[in-house]
Amino acid sequence: MSAPGQRAALADLPLRDDLRGRSPYGAPQLDVPFPLNTNENPYPPPPELVADITAAVQEIAGTLHRYPDRDAIALRDDLARYLAESTGVPLTVANLWAANGSNEILQQILQAFGGPGRVALGFEPSYSMHPIIAGGTRTEWSPTPRRADFSLDVEQAVKVLAERSPDVVFVTSPNNPTGQSIPLDDLRALVEAAPGIVVVDEAYAEFSPQESAVHLIDEFPTQVIVSRTMSKAFAFAGGRLGYLAAAPAVVDALLLVRLPYHLSALTQAAARAALRHADQTLASVHALAAERDRVAAALAGLGADVVPSDANFVLFGQFDDAPAAWKSYLDEGVLIRDVGIPGFLRVTVGTPVENDAFLAASKEIIK
Amino acid sequence: MSAPGQRAALADLPLRDDLRGRSPYGAPQLDVPFPLNTNENPYPPPPELVADITAAVQEIAGTLHRYPDRDAIALRDDLARYLAESTGVPLTVANLWAANGSNEILQQILQAFGGPGRVALGFEPSYSMHPIIAGGTRTEWSPTPRRADFSLDVEQAVKVLAERSPDVVFVTSPNNPTGQSIPLDDLRALVEAAPGIVVVDEAYAEFSPQESAVHLIDEFPTQVIVSRTMSKAFAFAGGRLGYLAAAPAVVDALLLVRLPYHLSALTQAAARAALRHADQTLASVHALAAERDRVAAALAGLGADVVPSDANFVLFGQFDDAPAAWKSYLDEGVLIRDVGIPGFLRVTVGTPVENDAFLAASKEIIK
Repeated sequence: MSAPGQRAALADLPLRDDLRGRSPYGAPQLDVPFPLNTNENPYPPPPELVADITAAVQEIAGTLHRYPDRDAIALRDDLARYLAESTGVPLTVANLWAANGSNEILQQILQAFGGPGRVALGFEPSYSMHPIIAGGTRTEWSPTPRRADFSLDVEQAVKVLAERSPDVVFVTSPNNPTGQSIPLDDLRALVEAAPGIVVVDEAYAEFSPQESAVHLIDEFPTQVIVSRTMSKAFAFAGGRLGYLAAAPAVVDALLLVRLPYHLSALTQAAARAALRHADQTLASVHALAAERDRVAAALAGLGADVVPSDANFVLFGQFDDAPAAWKSYLDEGVLIRDVGIPGFLRVTVGTPVENDAFLAASKEIIK
Repeated sequence: MSAPGQRAALADLPLRDDLRGRSPYGAPQLDVPFPLNTNENPYPPPPELVADITAAVQEIAGTLHRYPDRDAIALRDDLARYLAESTGVPLTVANLWAANGSNEILQQILQAFGGPGRVALGFEPSYSMHPIIAGGTRTEWSPTPRRADFSLDVEQAVKVLAERSPDVVFVTSPNNPTGQSIPLDDLRALVEAAPGIVVVDEAYAEFSPQESAVHLIDEFPTQVIVSRTMSKAFAFAGGRLGYLAAAPAVVDALLLVRLPYHLSALTQAAARAALRHADQTLASVHALAAERDRVAAALAGLGADVVPSDANFVLFGQFDDAPAAWKSYLDEGVLIRDVGIPGFLRVTVGTPVENDAFLAASKEIIK
């Protein structure tokens, strides 16, 4: 049976010109034995957390006919406590904001501080959603390259910021998909050189030994926004909870652009349950960091060019034909990520069994 | 203890000029005996539904470390089945799209078909988020007034569409906050006069005897988008599930602007549970429609000017000072809505007890 309206094609629609010919973002969602492509935490929520999430949802399910707390106060309070405890910076509910994944956080930031006539700058290669979200908010994207080894040349970056004066700067630390994080003093130099907002995207911060940029909020309250996610270390990718820490005035600004009631009562309740089990969940972080170092060393032992990583993934190469190598891994049941950097592929650190499968395939594929 | 960055004020931030001086959208969230201000369904999810939502969440909670289905196929399939059964139009998964509330649906539509250099038109007074979402996507907002009695002058509207040639037209049916719905033939005349997209916002459709605009999708596949929500009749406001029905190509267009993984695994599972109980939940719709008619008749009996409503709310007046009257209701524990129409207030239809409390207060307040 054909769907109503099937005869109309995408090209027949009055789509915005800048969207014509584009493809939707997203890694292939394939059912494979070893999914190592989206930097998920490979360890499922433990039974205690499953029970707590279930109980939390049961408790609020009887009130789902009512709108949720529009300002998500209790959840933001819990996030503040977690971030304050883990960083030592005395953050409060007024410093925190939450949304459906850090993508929505970043979109709200650009709706408030970017948009038409404004410029956002990032150091590439980096998280590929940054330019996409800039495009979605009609913010001009002004990328500047990292060094050939993917590290950030801070001195050069400071010059570029002075020259281009971007309204919003994205700094990803640890950087996805390359893995390096940026020391606090280097970040400070970047913020001092930037004329406006600096978004430090710390999606992978829990895996890194570097101090968080939340240490810079009080020093640069009109500039520094630190975005975080529960998708990675927290093993909560399916729950979609991104958040940020910044000066309270930044949160006030985002209230002007957020869609009202953007965060469901289910999300708020389940994320609070996940935060109550932070110690247990984050225990996997150490194991994953150790596995990351094992995978990196083994890849290096196979002769691969391995980029140093502070995150839960490793970028490695160099392949004459990375897309062909990606396919070879897939043929072995190992799904990794072709992030579009010529010669390189990115592998998420999984369980020891998953990593062994990846390394066994690597022995065949890396010549 | 003061929050880090507290010394910065909103005015110190590099906020977009068009946001300066604005206030966040949203009705007051007050704890009162009779909350009749946000058009929620007053009947809580029944125990069977609470149990089913809880079981559904328990089933997926162990996989929350993985990203959700980015395309929400199973949920869209269920939504298609519900909408096909309730309208008689053979919609399929390819016709459906879902997001975190219909606000996000509308934002995605304007990201794809509106934006800078494009114009969206609405017939006011109507849902106040339409111009706000237009602003958030930098779409020029071009309102045109309804008649003095808030009905839509279709002949006049057709002329306005020909003159202004807006890229996107919003038609709310039943209209919020006034209540009237628009017959299918009138809608057809509007679509024929519109040069581009026509979004029919059917948030309150289940309460109306009028046929849904999904009947027009096959006739106008490049134009008609019908937005819906589970917040009202479905008693799922806390779950945040908005959706749309349109030609499959429209869904393809939205895939270009949606944030990847925008819809959590929790939301997808809980909404599917709520859809399984549609018959039970929607049984309240008839009771609410009957109560609406009782409330409208009683208000008219008190000498109020009552706007005919096909929704779960009633707009009534005329007050010399509507904000003062709103406060008088609040003093009686009855929270209703001042929607900014001089002389009028909007009351959500609640349970018989809530409606009686509202009517008792009305006897004192309406002179």
